[in-house]
Amino acid sequence: MTHGRPAGRPSPLEAPIAIIGVGLMGGSLGRALVAAGARDIRGVDPDPAVAAEAVGLGTLTSVAASVRDAVDGAGTVVVGAPIARIPGVVADVLAAAGPDCVVTDLGSAKAGIVASVPPGQRSRFVGGHPICGGERSGIAAARDGMFDGATWFLTPTPEVRDDLFQRVHGLISAVGARPVAIDAGVHDRLMALVSHVPHVLAAALVDQGAATTPQGREALRSAGPSFHDLTRVAGSSPQLWADIFLANGGALLDALRDYRARLEAVEDLIDAGDRDGLVDFVARGAEGRARLRRDWGDADARAHRIVVGVPNRQGVLSQVVTALGHAHINIEDLALHPASSEGGELVLGVIGRSAAVRAAEHIADLGYRVEVDEA
Amino acid sequence: MTHGRPAGRPSPLEAPIAIIGVGLMGGSLGRALVAAGARDIRGVDPDPAVAAEAVGLGTLTSVAASVRDAVDGAGTVVVGAPIARIPGVVADVLAAAGPDCVVTDLGSAKAGIVASVPPGQRSRFVGGHPICGGERSGIAAARDGMFDGATWFLTPTPEVRDDLFQRVHGLISAVGARPVAIDAGVHDRLMALVSHVPHVLAAALVDQGAATTPQGREALRSAGPSFHDLTRVAGSSPQLWADIFLANGGALLDALRDYRARLEAVEDLIDAGDRDGLVDFVARGAEGRARLRRDWGDADARAHRIVVGVPNRQGVLSQVVTALGHAHINIEDLALHPASSEGGELVLGVIGRSAAVRAAEHIADLGYRVEVDEA
Repeated sequence: MTHGRPAGRPSPLEAPIAIIGVGLMGGSLGRALVAAGARDIRGVDPDPAVAAEAVGLGTLTSVAASVRDAVDGAGTVVVGAPIARIPGVVADVLAAAGPDCVVTDLGSAKAGIVASVPPGQRSRFVGGHPICGGERSGIAAARDGMFDGATWFLTPTPEVRDDLFQRVHGLISAVGARPVAIDAGVHDRLMALVSHVPHVLAAALVDQGAATTPQGREALRSAGPSFHDLTRVAGSSPQLWADIFLANGGALLDALRDYRARLEAVEDLIDAGDRDGLVDFVARGAEGRARLRRDWGDADARAHRIVVGVPNRQGVLSQVVTALGHAHINIEDLALHPASSEGGELVLGVIGRSAAVRAAEHIADLGYRVEVDEA
Repeated sequence: MTHGRPAGRPSPLEAPIAIIGVGLMGGSLGRALVAAGARDIRGVDPDPAVAAEAVGLGTLTSVAASVRDAVDGAGTVVVGAPIARIPGVVADVLAAAGPDCVVTDLGSAKAGIVASVPPGQRSRFVGGHPICGGERSGIAAARDGMFDGATWFLTPTPEVRDDLFQRVHGLISAVGARPVAIDAGVHDRLMALVSHVPHVLAAALVDQGAATTPQGREALRSAGPSFHDLTRVAGSSPQLWADIFLANGGALLDALRDYRARLEAVEDLIDAGDRDGLVDFVARGAEGRARLRRDWGDADARAHRIVVGVPNRQGVLSQVVTALGHAHINIEDLALHPASSEGGELVLGVIGRSAAVRAAEHIADLGYRVEVDEA
């Protein structure tokens, strides 16, 4: 995934990296960073035995005694705490970390966490959410290759410092994941639709089945493959999911209300005996499903360089990368080259000619000068 | 699955069997009946080429030119038509079939079909629904072993003639499936919960995802494993499912309304920030899911004989077998032995001591004298 790094550009793995909370995600990240060549990865966990175990498993290079010790001299701090505690831990870390240290997190809802960071401190914070994981939790479930090719959402604000955003972007590319910058609110709406609503639906379906025993016959005992498919995710950790539902409460409520209205529309079709409407409804599901199975990859897998002339103004980098994230264009590599006090060049690496051309169109729409070369 | 047959009891495979509609289910049934030793299986299909192909594939022994020809001299007629056409075909078959021929069907909603049979003709009709199948349809997808161990619901009415019910029960056991008699309305409520609601939920979820593109980012392109699990069934045949939704409209509407109320309750928990309530909701889903994975089998797999003293009165057999079906007790074999004009013995084969004891309790509750022996 990673491309050649221009001479003189600092590696995101050179400065010490601190991981706060060494569970499945934090532990797997430490392991991937060790594999990528990072030499100083300090960890801290509320349970000191967990951090010590992580060193034994090779997922950390050292255990820190406290958050303050962990972040001392670090270039990047990754907060892997449970979602309800992330805002508090991020605040502690930002207070303790140096002025050139960037802080990111791994929480699965983003707008609330971003909003919890005071605007004056947002220059050093980039929200993050890797889309991977597993059914088990904890350091023991950490494994190699967990981030390979995984989408890793970043939600940079206009206030974030360009060099600090680049460092997080580079670190994520270094572990084999695909950084995708999107707006925090867009992230939360997407996750509500593709993850949080499905978890609610699955639990509600099992609950309904368990509660229903017409004439003593238990519905669950007649469950077939379709019921099993729909309820597979219903066995997940209740504490974790309750906190995710609350952390993404706004977007989840909107999505659930919209979903309920869709069910009511289906009920109306059934009630009216509207066969054509029902055929159309099921057919739309079939089409969407076919679309899901589609290969989104670009046939042309050559790397392209997109060179953007950018003014020397705060927020341009986050604006450009977020626009490309919304347009499903993956940025494999990025570098900013200051040219003068007025501005400089932003160089983006994108795979595939058509993706590069689309990227250039989006960037031109934002009002910047742009060129595309084969890399 | 099948037990030794008492001497003198006619095999359900001796008289000719007619299959009306030779698709996936009808074709697979023909194939299984041939394998079980049936020698005369006539088929008819609106598409004569399909029936001819079925003979070529060994799933029928002959093609009939018409429904009238197919049922002539048949002991059992199985209607495998699309669900919306089953009532009409059943009426035609009952009109054409002899007085000792039993008619059954393979439709996935039962109350409407049973209600469509005039009470005066119900002595010769037993609704049926095998719980198996596959994603593909048509005779070419028919395969060996499709019914092995599958639950095959039967919905006998009190009017059904005991010997005709026995014939259908025996035929289903002969192909390796487990006949389970339940009330038609109970069947439809169960199927709404474990199959029809899941199909609606999956299609609605894909539809919602496809319709939502915040800032141009398509929700479907961020779909992960949970979304894929929940939408796997959304690619099914629109015509077929529209007809199933309509055929089970009453029970499906009730289940969807109940489900919507459950979603609304979850929304209220989120809105109120009720973490304990949400933890409890997800935990109930996890418990139900664990229950689903439970092995319902009986540790003691010995066959038991349950001997019931039954009055010579219409409806006793359907009453007893339906009560056991509701109680999740599988009847592996059944025989009625008339003793006098007042009554006789009903002998049921059940696997497992605890199932046999429970069966005897249920039968005693109905007011009949009952004994349990090891077979």
